[in-house]
Amino acid sequence: MSDTPAIAQEAVLKPSETWDGPLVSGIDFDKPENKNVRAKDLVKQMRYMGFQASALAEACEIIDEMRSFKEIDENGVEQRTTIFLGYTSNLISSGLRSTLKYLVKHKMVSAIVTTGGGVEEDLIKCLAPTQMGDFALPGADLRERGLNRIGNLIVPNDNYTKFEDWIVPILKQMHVEQEQGFNWTPSKLIDRLGKEINDEESVLYWAHKNQIPVFSPAITDGSLGDMLFFNSYKNDLRVDLVEDIRKINSMSINAYRAGMILLGGGLVKHHINNACLMRNGADYAVYINTGQEFDGSDAGARPDEAISWGKIKADARNVKLYCEVTAVFPLIVAATFASD
Amino acid sequence: MSDTPAIAQEAVLKPSETWDGPLVSGIDFDKPENKNVRAKDLVKQMRYMGFQASALAEACEIIDEMRSFKEIDENGVEQRTTIFLGYTSNLISSGLRSTLKYLVKHKMVSAIVTTGGGVEEDLIKCLAPTQMGDFALPGADLRERGLNRIGNLIVPNDNYTKFEDWIVPILKQMHVEQEQGFNWTPSKLIDRLGKEINDEESVLYWAHKNQIPVFSPAITDGSLGDMLFFNSYKNDLRVDLVEDIRKINSMSINAYRAGMILLGGGLVKHHINNACLMRNGADYAVYINTGQEFDGSDAGARPDEAISWGKIKADARNVKLYCEVTAVFPLIVAATFASD
Amino acid sequence: MSDTPAIAQEAVLKPSETWDGPLVSGIDFDKPENKNVRAKDLVKQMRYMGFQASALAEACEIIDEMRSFKEIDENGVEQRTTIFLGYTSNLISSGLRSTLKYLVKHKMVSAIVTTGGGVEEDLIKCLAPTQMGDFALPGADLRERGLNRIGNLIVPNDNYTKFEDWIVPILKQMHVEQEQGFNWTPSKLIDRLGKEINDEESVLYWAHKNQIPVFSPAITDGSLGDMLFFNSYKNDLRVDLVEDIRKINSMSINAYRAGMILLGGGLVKHHINNACLMRNGADYAVYINTGQEFDGSDAGARPDEAISWGKIKADARNVKLYCEVTAVFPLIVAATFASD
Amino acid sequence: MSDTPAIAQEAVLKPSETWDGPLVSGIDFDKPENKNVRAKDLVKQMRYMGFQASALAEACEIIDEMRSFKEIDENGVEQRTTIFLGYTSNLISSGLRSTLKYLVKHKMVSAIVTTGGGVEEDLIKCLAPTQMGDFALPGADLRERGLNRIGNLIVPNDNYTKFEDWIVPILKQMHVEQEQGFNWTPSKLIDRLGKEINDEESVLYWAHKNQIPVFSPAITDGSLGDMLFFNSYKNDLRVDLVEDIRKINSMSINAYRAGMILLGGGLVKHHINNACLMRNGADYAVYINTGQEFDGSDAGARPDEAISWGKIKADARNVKLYCEVTAVFPLIVAATFASD
Repeated sequence: MSDTPAIAQEAVLKPSETWDGPLVSGIDFDKPENKNVRAKDLVKQMRYMGFQASALAEACEIIDEMRSFKEIDENGVEQRTTIFLGYTSNLISSGLRSTLKYLVKHKMVSAIVTTGGGVEEDLIKCLAPTQMGDFALPGADLRERGLNRIGNLIVPNDNYTKFEDWIVPILKQMHVEQEQGFNWTPSKLIDRLGKEINDEESVLYWAHKNQIPVFSPAITDGSLGDMLFFNSYKNDLRVDLVEDIRKINSMSINAYRAGMILLGGGLVKHHINNACLMRNGADYAVYINTGQEFDGSDAGARPDEAISWGKIKADARNVKLYCEVTAVFPLIVAATFASD
Repeated sequence: MSDTPAIAQEAVLKPSETWDGPLVSGIDFDKPENKNVRAKDLVKQMRYMGFQASALAEACEIIDEMRSFKEIDENGVEQRTTIFLGYTSNLISSGLRSTLKYLVKHKMVSAIVTTGGGVEEDLIKCLAPTQMGDFALPGADLRERGLNRIGNLIVPNDNYTKFEDWIVPILKQMHVEQEQGFNWTPSKLIDRLGKEINDEESVLYWAHKNQIPVFSPAITDGSLGDMLFFNSYKNDLRVDLVEDIRKINSMSINAYRAGMILLGGGLVKHHINNACLMRNGADYAVYINTGQEFDGSDAGARPDEAISWGKIKADARNVKLYCEVTAVFPLIVAATFASD
Repeated sequence: MSDTPAIAQEAVLKPSETWDGPLVSGIDFDKPENKNVRAKDLVKQMRYMGFQASALAEACEIIDEMRSFKEIDENGVEQRTTIFLGYTSNLISSGLRSTLKYLVKHKMVSAIVTTGGGVEEDLIKCLAPTQMGDFALPGADLRERGLNRIGNLIVPNDNYTKFEDWIVPILKQMHVEQEQGFNWTPSKLIDRLGKEINDEESVLYWAHKNQIPVFSPAITDGSLGDMLFFNSYKNDLRVDLVEDIRKINSMSINAYRAGMILLGGGLVKHHINNACLMRNGADYAVYINTGQEFDGSDAGARPDEAISWGKIKADARNVKLYCEVTAVFPLIVAATFASD
Repeated sequence: MSDTPAIAQEAVLKPSETWDGPLVSGIDFDKPENKNVRAKDLVKQMRYMGFQASALAEACEIIDEMRSFKEIDENGVEQRTTIFLGYTSNLISSGLRSTLKYLVKHKMVSAIVTTGGGVEEDLIKCLAPTQMGDFALPGADLRERGLNRIGNLIVPNDNYTKFEDWIVPILKQMHVEQEQGFNWTPSKLIDRLGKEINDEESVLYWAHKNQIPVFSPAITDGSLGDMLFFNSYKNDLRVDLVEDIRKINSMSINAYRAGMILLGGGLVKHHINNACLMRNGADYAVYINTGQEFDGSDAGARPDEAISWGKIKADARNVKLYCEVTAVFPLIVAATFASD
């Protein structure tokens, strides 16, 4: 028998330096306090578990820092963090809407960016419910039955008819106000709709109530766009983008401290990041999405890409949690905003 | 020795019915015609390879059907397919811009939907180049050096300064025209910028030249938004969304036949789908993106979800190719639009 | 002003049938019982939230069914579910190891399938700790310092040297036993190592203690393989695969009822599925992984693909949760195995 | 009107240093030589396109370097690169098998690692074909009809029955040889099966013919395992892992230069990497898969993680192409191995 090859032994048994990272640790469910554990206690013990467990726990830490920050400025005024919350349309279609409503109702966030669907689905849910379906339901059969699928959810098409009935007089009235010189923007339209819906289950109702602006530059991309399109055969109602970009950028510039909580990718993620460039970077950033960076999209970009642009400060705490939002955000809210 | 368990043998050796799908086949590179093979010939042989090879080959088939469709209508007019092309901003930042320019220059598409970045990066590239970088370049160092990262690309920040210098007088002139009663919309703004840039490398130049409308409802979400924001301290230039939603929806309704080629997800994918709902469904759909349906986002939704909404016709040929666009679209264009 | 196009109105406002799915619902964090909520109560309220929240809650339901199943068979013997647990190597490297240990210590699972790393990293952690690092640490620098990276974890190379010191005499003794006619297989090797490590933090220690077999057909693929390779210059120790395939298949055939909990993809997922084919299908299946089906890999295949093979029964409850395991499995265990 | 906020202008218009990366470039399909372009010429022009286009073109460059490397060693012997090719089972099920066969037939690779399915499906295809299906075919119906689904492929179950008929006498003969003192390993079993199948469409036939070893440590995980399980009721045929780990590691150690081409993840990716650790790192590495690093799996790990382990040399050319294999590997082979 020959000798063990030296090159292999040296490669495998190469000596190592000391590494000073925290020890990886887990949850000892044998501890009595971990029997039927509370969300907050569970998350704390995920901090040094590695992979996305650590990211989830860090997201909670950063959110807790954001929301607990208080400082007396040079004028003796107490300053807090301006929190920008972004979410995609599907999250409003899902049951997560209740959680988002909770955050807005209790003024836990300062401004919202969402897509057209993220606006209209909140309103439509006040008129008729969204239901559970399945990812595999065949589209042709659903279309014949007038049932629209959003992932594993179903929205009967009658819901959109109810939405039309509801919104037509509002758009008419808005046109009257335009004639009187009012410049409508997406955020002003949304504020009006939140007021009109007058339903405590609605995110937009509370946004209106609490004067939390909701930005949605592509407001015409969805059912609201369909309604504005139909309305365009009746009057020349216009919706201006420029006043809104000034408004969100000004909020960012005037923020003493700024944080972002970004649920999902695409427009909502980019728009909040872009606003934070105006202040030379957010002070905190939590991304939760399933996008990947290899396609070079902003949707999949890590916070470090935003740092290169000045959208997040170089020394800001930031984390990206690679997870579908509904699977983890309830736990995160339970362990942060709803734990006190 | 005991007997082989009957349950296992029956489960493993269960008899089967005949299946009539095509036989899986591959590429015999030993054939002389496959030596240094042409793109088109390669793709043809991928049709029954399975997985995404089949999707890629089917995407080419559908694109060829879209672009070759011709029919004489009841009025004796030759009708063709109205092709809606959607692409995300990062694709304009990449070298794929040249390919997109080729399609627009030769009027191979009828309308475009893109994001703010998909507009401005085309213009900025006429002023200064984008360069290759690396996905792993650290953001803090890049920011200090004024170098912005887009995936594995770098855009020096001076490019944006050049963009500002270029656009300021144009926005000023646009305001003058607004004062004369002109209602600016994203597509009209983009058409003007395509005219002003006057550069044959530009997608927007050719879109202007060939009167191919470019829609971008969230036009303020990006550098153009920054410029409109800065401009808002000088004048009250407005950009209206409603006229554009009417314009794209009307194109869809008036199309004799409609096809979509959607590169990437998010707004551009939803907006073209939504427009196609207005005609009760597109006749062809090709999706190329890396999104997944499990998160319930429109970005990741399969064409079959759009069928449930009436955005794609139940009997329309459609395919989703799960791939990063730059890796496959050059091959697809080579095998279709650029193969004749 | 012309009329609204009829085709658009009809398409948008198409009437719908009634759909009888459950209403989508969320978590009302305003309820006093949801203040600082327990994991189990949180999960229950995610059941009709949609997307992966629903999948997570359903996974908990199925696990609770698996573990609570009891039936008196024709011979008057109480029968329970044989639970096959599969996990990939990285999960043992992570802090999730403590949770896996908890399941094995309390005999909550019946058999395990893991990869080579899933075996050796459990043992090595008894000799020296794994530490937190970062996904972005540059590899060349780490190699120079003898620090091995696993995602955002670091394993100093000295740990492997300690492993060699520990295992050399064991392999020698195993060879002695082989000379006496013993046929070593991966599961027998692992059982011996679990006995030798004699450490209550070890999964394999408890697997040995509780006689829960650990299968790992590719046991040579990793550090154990390196050690067996080095040992091959000293003696002709052999490790046989056939006896193990008979053992796992027999467990499946003899199970009164069988369930799978599959954490991650690849070999561990396929091997348990294949064993369950021997009984004509598992009765319960919970998949948790980040794989996607579009690449045709078994790793990304949905449970429905396994049903086509007879690996899961057609009427078995099954779910795939599209999530990274460490982000969700602590919550799942808290809400199931550790909630009583 | 107030002044433009200085902080915003400074952030947006921050001056930049010069960056010396190559200019991003694309394909000018207006050039006559790009009309109906050849695969190789297409790929060359993707090098500085960005995102995965660049990765694809770089993969081709690295493969061309691997296969063209020649050096006269100190003994005057011409040395070339030992190329380790890894592929997952599904790729053999797909039509890519013909391309893999081409590489093996022409001795373009030196050794193969695959999973159990990657072995048996090659043999079974010589007995009966695999067919095209669809990702959405319902599993319960397929099972009833005895049709097994692999992504969008269908394998009728009779194919496995034919496989059993074919292999039973071979396993019997193998046992006879074992009785005569032969130590069977996965690679020796595979070599025998390649000889017995005697079919020029088979990868394994050519591997046998050209004495290219095929390693498959988890050979029992699949239909071959089922057959070995059934056979275990007839005789005590054994399959030893240790001799094979020595064989693959020795190939790596003895290689003058080593390259890896890894198609897919899981076992095949890790096993080749681990073998290359024995030589203190491969000299070239091309990964093509859809795995992501955020879950800490080896499947999704970037080449840079392997560098930290010494599995790839710090200065080795390496690339990861984030793509489903069948969508891009035909193009890659056309542009490299099959372009001369």
